[in-house]
Amino acid sequence: MKGFAMLGLNRVGWIEKEKPQCGALDALVSPLAVAPCTSDVHTVWEGALGDRHDMILGHEAVGIVSEVGALVRDFKPGDKVIVPAITPDWNSLEAQGGYSMHSGGMLAGWKFSNFKDGVFGEFFHVNDADGNLAHLPDGLDPVEAVMLSDMVPTGFHGAELADVQYGDTVLVVGIGPVGLMAVAGAALRGAGRIFAVGSRALCIEAARGYGATEIIDYHNGDLGAQVMEMTGGKGVDKAIIAGGTVGTIAQVIPVLKPGGRIGNVNYLGSGEFVTIPRIEWGCGMGHKVVVGGLMPGGRLRMEKLASMMVYGRLNVAPLITHRFNGFENMEKSLNLMKDKPRDLIKPVVIL
Amino acid sequence: MKGFAMLGLNRVGWIEKEKPQCGALDALVSPLAVAPCTSDVHTVWEGALGDRHDMILGHEAVGIVSEVGALVRDFKPGDKVIVPAITPDWNSLEAQGGYSMHSGGMLAGWKFSNFKDGVFGEFFHVNDADGNLAHLPDGLDPVEAVMLSDMVPTGFHGAELADVQYGDTVLVVGIGPVGLMAVAGAALRGAGRIFAVGSRALCIEAARGYGATEIIDYHNGDLGAQVMEMTGGKGVDKAIIAGGTVGTIAQVIPVLKPGGRIGNVNYLGSGEFVTIPRIEWGCGMGHKVVVGGLMPGGRLRMEKLASMMVYGRLNVAPLITHRFNGFENMEKSLNLMKDKPRDLIKPVVIL
Amino acid sequence: MKGFAMLGLNRVGWIEKEKPQCGALDALVSPLAVAPCTSDVHTVWEGALGDRHDMILGHEAVGIVSEVGALVRDFKPGDKVIVPAITPDWNSLEAQGGYSMHSGGMLAGWKFSNFKDGVFGEFFHVNDADGNLAHLPDGLDPVEAVMLSDMVPTGFHGAELADVQYGDTVLVVGIGPVGLMAVAGAALRGAGRIFAVGSRALCIEAARGYGATEIIDYHNGDLGAQVMEMTGGKGVDKAIIAGGTVGTIAQVIPVLKPGGRIGNVNYLGSGEFVTIPRIEWGCGMGHKVVVGGLMPGGRLRMEKLASMMVYGRLNVAPLITHRFNGFENMEKSLNLMKDKPRDLIKPVVIL
Amino acid sequence: MKGFAMLGLNRVGWIEKEKPQCGALDALVSPLAVAPCTSDVHTVWEGALGDRHDMILGHEAVGIVSEVGALVRDFKPGDKVIVPAITPDWNSLEAQGGYSMHSGGMLAGWKFSNFKDGVFGEFFHVNDADGNLAHLPDGLDPVEAVMLSDMVPTGFHGAELADVQYGDTVLVVGIGPVGLMAVAGAALRGAGRIFAVGSRALCIEAARGYGATEIIDYHNGDLGAQVMEMTGGKGVDKAIIAGGTVGTIAQVIPVLKPGGRIGNVNYLGSGEFVTIPRIEWGCGMGHKVVVGGLMPGGRLRMEKLASMMVYGRLNVAPLITHRFNGFENMEKSLNLMKDKPRDLIKPVVIL
Repeated sequence: MKGFAMLGLNRVGWIEKEKPQCGALDALVSPLAVAPCTSDVHTVWEGALGDRHDMILGHEAVGIVSEVGALVRDFKPGDKVIVPAITPDWNSLEAQGGYSMHSGGMLAGWKFSNFKDGVFGEFFHVNDADGNLAHLPDGLDPVEAVMLSDMVPTGFHGAELADVQYGDTVLVVGIGPVGLMAVAGAALRGAGRIFAVGSRALCIEAARGYGATEIIDYHNGDLGAQVMEMTGGKGVDKAIIAGGTVGTIAQVIPVLKPGGRIGNVNYLGSGEFVTIPRIEWGCGMGHKVVVGGLMPGGRLRMEKLASMMVYGRLNVAPLITHRFNGFENMEKSLNLMKDKPRDLIKPVVIL
Repeated sequence: MKGFAMLGLNRVGWIEKEKPQCGALDALVSPLAVAPCTSDVHTVWEGALGDRHDMILGHEAVGIVSEVGALVRDFKPGDKVIVPAITPDWNSLEAQGGYSMHSGGMLAGWKFSNFKDGVFGEFFHVNDADGNLAHLPDGLDPVEAVMLSDMVPTGFHGAELADVQYGDTVLVVGIGPVGLMAVAGAALRGAGRIFAVGSRALCIEAARGYGATEIIDYHNGDLGAQVMEMTGGKGVDKAIIAGGTVGTIAQVIPVLKPGGRIGNVNYLGSGEFVTIPRIEWGCGMGHKVVVGGLMPGGRLRMEKLASMMVYGRLNVAPLITHRFNGFENMEKSLNLMKDKPRDLIKPVVIL
Repeated sequence: MKGFAMLGLNRVGWIEKEKPQCGALDALVSPLAVAPCTSDVHTVWEGALGDRHDMILGHEAVGIVSEVGALVRDFKPGDKVIVPAITPDWNSLEAQGGYSMHSGGMLAGWKFSNFKDGVFGEFFHVNDADGNLAHLPDGLDPVEAVMLSDMVPTGFHGAELADVQYGDTVLVVGIGPVGLMAVAGAALRGAGRIFAVGSRALCIEAARGYGATEIIDYHNGDLGAQVMEMTGGKGVDKAIIAGGTVGTIAQVIPVLKPGGRIGNVNYLGSGEFVTIPRIEWGCGMGHKVVVGGLMPGGRLRMEKLASMMVYGRLNVAPLITHRFNGFENMEKSLNLMKDKPRDLIKPVVIL
Repeated sequence: MKGFAMLGLNRVGWIEKEKPQCGALDALVSPLAVAPCTSDVHTVWEGALGDRHDMILGHEAVGIVSEVGALVRDFKPGDKVIVPAITPDWNSLEAQGGYSMHSGGMLAGWKFSNFKDGVFGEFFHVNDADGNLAHLPDGLDPVEAVMLSDMVPTGFHGAELADVQYGDTVLVVGIGPVGLMAVAGAALRGAGRIFAVGSRALCIEAARGYGATEIIDYHNGDLGAQVMEMTGGKGVDKAIIAGGTVGTIAQVIPVLKPGGRIGNVNYLGSGEFVTIPRIEWGCGMGHKVVVGGLMPGGRLRMEKLASMMVYGRLNVAPLITHRFNGFENMEKSLNLMKDKPRDLIKPVVIL
């Protein structure tokens, strides 16, 4: 079968591979729609996972089941399915402890284009089909449903980690597709005022549509100073970080109220240390919680988030700025994610 | 001063009383807008609090500060304020333990027209002004803000007690004003599908506007049977009870999934026992949580919920079906709550 | 193979059966030590599960692995293992949602002597060996470790459901083996004062040893009245129910403070309704949480609780009042659980 | 009146001051027993609060009420009381939000020898007596009860912040008096294995007594390497930091399992940044929670923790290595805390 792969550092292209084996609990799926992710860009051009060779890329897909293992009960060939980026081993100790995304080791619930080939091939392998696939609900557009693989659950997890409550003032750093879903997730958990940090016009418009009440642009001065001015010196209750660097948390801590929480869902790809300013962190005693986490994946998560789309709580259409047809557009769509033109939020390739 | 009072069981009318004393921490407030509540009806015509005499009614108000005690720091005469129905003693053991609404004893955070005169007078007394009043934000209509005293926090507390999470299927029983705010509160905590139980056309329309995806009418058959049919036998993740009787929980338990929660915010005025069907409760082992609770009051709660109105998350206008001007309409508005005509959701009296 | 079985209602005896099949993820285990449980008594003599025929009894065992399926990674024949009474399907939607004991349906994580043969046979089947077995730690007595299958996790879960916190005053109803573990579990979560309700001398002595500070005997008068007298009218912060009937919760509600929690781990075998007294429940608004739940099972739970025994936090020796050697004593030990002589807490049969 | 004060940086001594004014809600208390704290040392010799002049030191005391304000209801002159180091303004927004220790601003619930004179005087002022004092229970030694002011609640809060659960493996860094109470607090929340990091013989003996199962000495090599070797490469579930520097968290992160929590209760007095190693923190996605917090104070906290002493859960006697009689020993006892001789854990001065 064919797959669009990382050939080596800084090199991508089509390769021919054996169709994956389908274990007793597993499924093979053919993609109907896929999306490239900034993580794919990190993998290829920044070597985030090291120097991989001939590894098929991609972890965002909606597909059609091609084959299932003997022990699979709820899915059969021909079923249309949503595939989460994170596909845990549900009987692992980590999953039993509530952290399925770290099943088998930190971040090890992330398997596509990491421990095995990703979804940009004619077929891809899904471990534990009953536990990790979700049926595509009738009437849900497969192209929009691709946003459920990673963008929606990651952004929403930021709001979960920050534990947004009714009426909270929330700061969201970053308004790429994950940041936009963090804005939507904050509004959908009851936030009052939402500051979104970003500068691209298209993203700003989308952020407002998803519930941001004010936009903060780095170009207008220090992030913290702007927040303190806008809040009359009070700061924010919660913060979600969906962009920036290892230094971003240090910018947010000073504007976070005691008892506040920072939920990070930004993959920190470089830098030795995340830093927390000692004094603004209350000399270690300010109850300012700092946590970051990989999105929860698996079937239940997909079903629940899909239900939010089915019942009209969430409209992901504004995220999808580019639609392509055919595998031949994989490279173009990946390059878009790499180059991030001003009119891009997220591209989808329809197959 | 004058006040509209319960004269005795089944009797209401205007009385003349001494203006209340203002303690060192307290405030006297003159109402700008007030709303009668079903609780007032229970108090007068059902004797829910026993046979009271010459007790001024009412616990929902927006007002203007008339006088403050010597130790009050953040409020001064002339300030426009939101007054919560529940005004805790914040240094009580119960409040320190996280249950301020029970400060000094179960339900004892409820003081207006219970332990002291209510808000339907020329002046009313607010204990701990700094802890229990909130400044009316600029641009927030005082008439709409009256919904913050009780309707919004009570309905939203139902969603908090039920611990609604992203994508949950939620059942809301009752679509009076509190039930409608429970529907809104569920949607604003991320519910997917929301069933609302009720039959009045105006309330159904409002429920849909607040996020109900389907309406269940008791007249069409058993509540539980309808839910099970609509969910393909799966039932619901969470339930909020904002209407019904001591028997309502028994109807909901069978359609609640294991691990689900029932959040009751309906005042149960009669009946000896709430009943839980043993088998459908998993013989005591189904992890179906049953909890009911009085709304959290106080200043922070008011500020946070007001912020949701200021920033456009919540529009309470559909709740307010009747607006009256002048104290002389107090009795008419109270009678409306008692008679519940089909075109009523909530009346407000503007002063 | 041989097994000690329920032959039909009120009848037990030895039967000959096919050795169970071992699926790809599963294990066959031979018991080293087993214990009968009151649930076995309910099953046989009260028909709690209906009229079963030739079903091997038992769900508390430590054993030695005899065979493993092809996909099992962490266990091999000859390994000594702790077997939890509850063995979830970890990829089920319920487990993904945090309620593994209800995987596949309410209470359906309980499989032994319920959906399949139990552990009182020469061999028994364990689903998902990697997810549900735990290695017996070196130095841990297999006879004592049998208490980890059900008694310890069930009793401790009562303290978890009641959410015992530092310094809480806790009421524990019932001081059979589960109630004793509830007392120990409350002390090990930081309870201050602990009232234990029971009357058998041996159990009272054990309860004091596990941390009960006062004993309440039903024979001395109403439970609630005794608690209120002993607490100067204040009542208790939390309650754990490990004995009694469908009416026990109604006795506890009045002595529970607002904001308190009742954690039930008592299997309620008869009665139509659990009742909650309306007024003492704050007319539905007292924040008195009522919840009951089946113990969490699986491997991680067993490993964590075993660690508490290995590191000397918990000594289960006082629970084990009777030790028998050989399968021929299965019936005698089961009869002990049925007859509950005054010198019995829990018997173990060593094989 | 007389008070033992910080005269200026690096200088202490007795001064004469006006007896404090007692507000309407407040109390004046005369100390019966007091203890110096490492914070007093930081204040005087490290200038942690800046250059203060003639500020009476001390925040750990048991005393006798001398005077109460007109609005105080539950205390009267002559009552023996436990005084918490943290005395919140309970009606503040922060307290309403669950963070009373930050009432009025980050860390601002700490008033003694910070915003006002401390407890090392003939009389000291307590704000909100009803909310912040606790009656000394009959039979509780006032000298031991002094440990309730700060050492017990701070150490236990570490275990709360780390959210220790049954069977958790817990790392406690630091075994001074707070660290020892963190060890005790971890054991009393159900920890299994507990590693304690320290090297003084007396503290090691006390740590074992409070429940540490193994001791780690920095002198024997890298902390993290020792933990990983002792756990077979698995690391720990939770960590409590009660000693060290701004760099200590960076040492602990690598040995913390994903989903783990670090609860810091160590006052970080110097250094610009707390650092979190990026990769071992899962590139921002490992769900390793980092939080630090000032102890919760107030009356309920004191009552609950006192109950643990009254009912024999906690014996603080091993903490108190030095007992002095009379104010004249204040300086000697403070110098002990400064010099930390090997036979010291905590001194108390009895008055």
